Amino acid sequence: MSSLAPGDTIGILGGGQLGRMLAMSAAQYGLKTHIFDPAPDAPAAEVCAHHTCASYTDEDALTAFASACDVVTFEFENIPRASLEKLAGAVPLRPGIASLETSQDRLIEKQFLEGLGLQVAPYASIQSANQIAPAHAVLGGDTILKTRRFGYDGKGQARLRESADALVAWQTIGEQPAVLEARIPFAAELSAVVARGTDGQCVAYDLPVNTHTDGILDSSAVGSFADFSISDALRDEAQQAAIQVASALDHVGTLAVEFFVSPEGTILVNEFAPRVHNSGHWTMDACLVDQFDNHIRAIAGWPLGSAKRHSDALMRNLIGEDAHSHESQLAAPSVQLHLYGKAEARAGRKMGHITQIAPRQNSV
Amino acid sequence: MSSLAPGDTIGILGGGQLGRMLAMSAAQYGLKTHIFDPAPDAPAAEVCAHHTCASYTDEDALTAFASACDVVTFEFENIPRASLEKLAGAVPLRPGIASLETSQDRLIEKQFLEGLGLQVAPYASIQSANQIAPAHAVLGGDTILKTRRFGYDGKGQARLRESADALVAWQTIGEQPAVLEARIPFAAELSAVVARGTDGQCVAYDLPVNTHTDGILDSSAVGSFADFSISDALRDEAQQAAIQVASALDHVGTLAVEFFVSPEGTILVNEFAPRVHNSGHWTMDACLVDQFDNHIRAIAGWPLGSAKRHSDALMRNLIGEDAHSHESQLAAPSVQLHLYGKAEARAGRKMGHITQIAPRQNSV
Repeated sequence: MSSLAPGDTIGILGGGQLGRMLAMSAAQYGLKTHIFDPAPDAPAAEVCAHHTCASYTDEDALTAFASACDVVTFEFENIPRASLEKLAGAVPLRPGIASLETSQDRLIEKQFLEGLGLQVAPYASIQSANQIAPAHAVLGGDTILKTRRFGYDGKGQARLRESADALVAWQTIGEQPAVLEARIPFAAELSAVVARGTDGQCVAYDLPVNTHTDGILDSSAVGSFADFSISDALRDEAQQAAIQVASALDHVGTLAVEFFVSPEGTILVNEFAPRVHNSGHWTMDACLVDQFDNHIRAIAGWPLGSAKRHSDALMRNLIGEDAHSHESQLAAPSVQLHLYGKAEARAGRKMGHITQIAPRQNSV
Repeated sequence: MSSLAPGDTIGILGGGQLGRMLAMSAAQYGLKTHIFDPAPDAPAAEVCAHHTCASYTDEDALTAFASACDVVTFEFENIPRASLEKLAGAVPLRPGIASLETSQDRLIEKQFLEGLGLQVAPYASIQSANQIAPAHAVLGGDTILKTRRFGYDGKGQARLRESADALVAWQTIGEQPAVLEARIPFAAELSAVVARGTDGQCVAYDLPVNTHTDGILDSSAVGSFADFSISDALRDEAQQAAIQVASALDHVGTLAVEFFVSPEGTILVNEFAPRVHNSGHWTMDACLVDQFDNHIRAIAGWPLGSAKRHSDALMRNLIGEDAHSHESQLAAPSVQLHLYGKAEARAGRKMGHITQIAPRQNSV
């Protein structure tokens, strides 16, 4: 597969904070970036060489964009299939359509994961309201109804405590194809962020222990900051599962798999994202080569860097008005601040994050 | 003094690699950057929100630039005095004119350093060719003739082995006001990179041991990578000298002082730069908060971050065609690559740098 030369241009679909951090990583490597995002004030537009401000379905804009780029990647998975196909016909698209298509639909995703022999939480496919109550009864305990498509950060989800909640849940998620998942007890939520090169080589970062509030990632803790001890065996199993996912998709770039750890210590896959991931932001300050760097190296066809970390780390998201505390965050010792350049601190909006680091406690 | 809010705009005079890395650091903190550089393809132009492409003496462009920025800084010190005064009258200029003016002229710089009680190599002021030979005889041994203004990376310099070299040296440097310096033997070349905030607080990075080839920085080694052992007393003395320089100038931002260490272990100041410095590039990969971050924090009126390093580091510049080795550099373990987006790898041109890190050997 072709590899980029310094000065070449990476196209990025989506100019939010992930696109912004990808663009900065590309710039570090002497690569230009071209952002495609319909918002004139997209966060990534401030740090890129070019910005196509157009709809993701604008065929002329997509054609011009493809011809201006040497490779195209994306920061989010909900890009229309037809647009992806148009691009993939004109320029290398990394990762490819298989990675996107599999993760765009929760039912296809779960079937894919099960096909790899990975364990997921018990679930049922839901096409209509009247399928919900029987499925809830079979799954037992609390369940959670999730749209098959376009869900993120807890959106498109509704919890059911009893069968009588079915109709309200169905209405809450907008009456669309869904999966009903058993809400299983867990000892910890972890994620494995891996990167895979055009040559199939993979690197895996250490696992953060994640916490969520209202479905939005709150913090990721690695090493001494984590309140759950990850055995070497558990780490290896999760990293290998993520590598298995990446390899099965012939994925090129960074990919993140979220896991639940059951009280008995077994791991279940929650979902995966075929891209850089919020739970990998700690790598920016605790690793020489972070998740964005390795994504850029991978899609450029370059050798990946080691995923080794030099420090323990605690990443906390700054959501909505949290970002107004930036001066006190800056004054805290061993803390780095990252803000995404978003003008308005709306509730629930990811405005930035902070990372606290500490010397690694365990051996390298 | 006023401090910036996220979303505010930092103006940067000069869009080379230092401006580029400053812009990326500003973006990390949610700040916009506006580059002022006459080159349409200035490296920093690819990572900034705005680029004024105009001469440094274009008064209309300077006026418009000042009104578009919340604070203005610079990446190099040879900006015309009149332009600086125009800007400083319209917008906070950080660091201020005193820092620039003192470092723009080698004679004024040396007199300033001596005034602080710091030791410099013996020198003589040279106004005309016939002053050179007598001064060479007084200084003894080899000497080096340096233009008072506009010298960098070994440019504007000529070495004298005997008095008879005077005329050629004078012609080599373009027959302009100069200083003749004794070329003293040294055990090591070090530098101290410090940052000073608007409140006068200072932080100091660990000292790298630097090597030069043909007057251009070749490498900076910190911790276990250094082949010269820096005692705690020597480190403290050098850091305090740099802080003294910054404080005397009421400097705001990052500042670097270059030292020679004599064979007897005393330190002499070579020169200082009132800005981020090539010998501080290792901080990008070995410190949580690097020299660019602390410059941005300082000029934003924000709290500085700790200058503590988490790793030992070796920075090597990629000069000219060195940059063509980027794929092998990427494949090396524990190495990060930085390329500056310059199209043409001319001889002597700084194209990028690499940093190798290793776990810190001494205690934190």
